[in-house]
Formats: sequence, C-alpha cells, structure tokens
Amino acid sequence: MNSSHQELIAINSAFYDAFSNGKSTEMSEIWSENENISCIHPGWGSVVGRIAVIRSWQSILANPPKIHCANPQTFINDHSGYVICFEEIGNNRLIATNIFHYEKSGWKLVHHQAGVTRPIDRSEKSSKKLIH
Amino acid sequence: MNSSHQELIAINSAFYDAFSNGKSTEMSEIWSENENISCIHPGWGSVVGRIAVIRSWQSILANPPKIHCANPQTFINDHSGYVICFEEIGNNRLIATNIFHYEKSGWKLVHHQAGVTRPIDRSEKSSKKLIH
Repeated sequence: MNSSHQELIAINSAFYDAFSNGKSTEMSEIWSENENISCIHPGWGSVVGRIAVIRSWQSILANPPKIHCANPQTFINDHSGYVICFEEIGNNRLIATNIFHYEKSGWKLVHHQAGVTRPIDRSEKSSKKLIH
Repeated sequence: MNSSHQELIAINSAFYDAFSNGKSTEMSEIWSENENISCIHPGWGSVVGRIAVIRSWQSILANPPKIHCANPQTFINDHSGYVICFEEIGNNRLIATNIFHYEKSGWKLVHHQAGVTRPIDRSEKSSKKLIH
C-alpha cells in the first residue's frame, strides 16, 4: 500500500474517531472548506453545502454513537479518492462511501453516504480468523 | 450548468436507462474498464473489481425494476465527479451516490451506492409544484 492509500486510511480513521467521540471541531476540520460538499445520513435525504453538512454533524455529535470502522478499502484516482467501509455500532452495522479530495492541506472529506447492510455474522468473523 | 455537469447528468441518466430497461451491454459500457471499481447494492456488502461488479449487475438486470432517477445533483473536481440522486421505484425510493472518472472515452462509472431514504411524500411534491 503506497503513502496516498495510507493517508486516506488515516483521515478516514480520524473521521470515525471524531464521529464516535463527539469531537465537533475535529469533524469540521476533516471536511473540505469547499462550499460544494454533501452528506447522506442513513435514512435521510441529501444534505448539500458546507454550512448544512457541518450543522447536521453538530446535531449527531451532541449524542454520538460508539461507532467502529471495519474493513476500509481505498480507491484513488489522481487527486480524488474514496473509501468504502463497514460502520459497526454494537451488533448492527452500516456500510459507507466516503469521498475525499486532495487539497493544499491534505485529503479532505467532500461526501459521506452510509446505509444499512446485512448484519454482522459473528460465526463468519470467527471462521475468517481461523483461516488467516 | 457547464458542459461537464451536463455530461455527468447525461451518463447518469444512461445508467438509469440501462438499469430500468435491463440493458446489460450498455450497463457494462457505462462502467469503467478499470479493474479497481466497486458497488454497494442496497442491503448488500461491497462488490469490488470489474468482473464481480458486472456480474452483480447481470443478475439484477435479468429482472430489472422500473427505476426512475429524480433530482440528480452533480459535484465535479477535476477529472472526478459524483452524482447524488433519488431512485424512485413505484412509491418507494432509495438515495444513491454515483462516482465517475473522466477517462479517454468520457465519464465512466467507478462506484455506486444506493440505500434507503425517507419515503416519497406526494403531498410535499405537489405543494412544491404550486410554489414553483
């Protein structure tokens, strides 16, 4: 894995750290300063524009879930990249697409969509552990 | 709206035309030839790699839903762009993120995620018509 992929994994982890721990300042800094950003929270419509996106996170981070990012996979094309990953909340999980752009200050989040996926199969997880 | 945004709207429409009408050849051509593409169908995990992605569509297009794209919004950064839109299937609807890269042959789809959103409020739609 080259450094760009590692950087993308790191900023994606920082996003889930801010999410899980209700760090609204860090969350605001992870998102691009560009006005043209967007977000689709599970079950919501689309939220478009930096002010609306950051406001949507402030309401979520006031009472944050314990959320854990699992199996992140990175895809990079030039100065754009995205990460797909599972979001584990207790025994439930969602699946997400996080789009980042490489800006002067590094990778910045420009779009997030999370939605339901099939539940965690704990037996599948433990059998995978045996294989690896 | 400049020509890139119009091109993105057009390829996104072609995607939903192929989807709704079960056109598997057109669907295959809309996706990038790049091996590193991905797809998250509603309720599924992630499908990664061109062969797996195209195969997943073949099974869906064998019995395609009547799906209509509504309210597409485009976001472009250099040679990458994405569209967020609603997917209306009868009275149900999903919300999607479609990521495209600009390649030699034009915009090509590299990632699609669709998930549940709030249902269509027909009264909301008709009241909007009155306002506009």
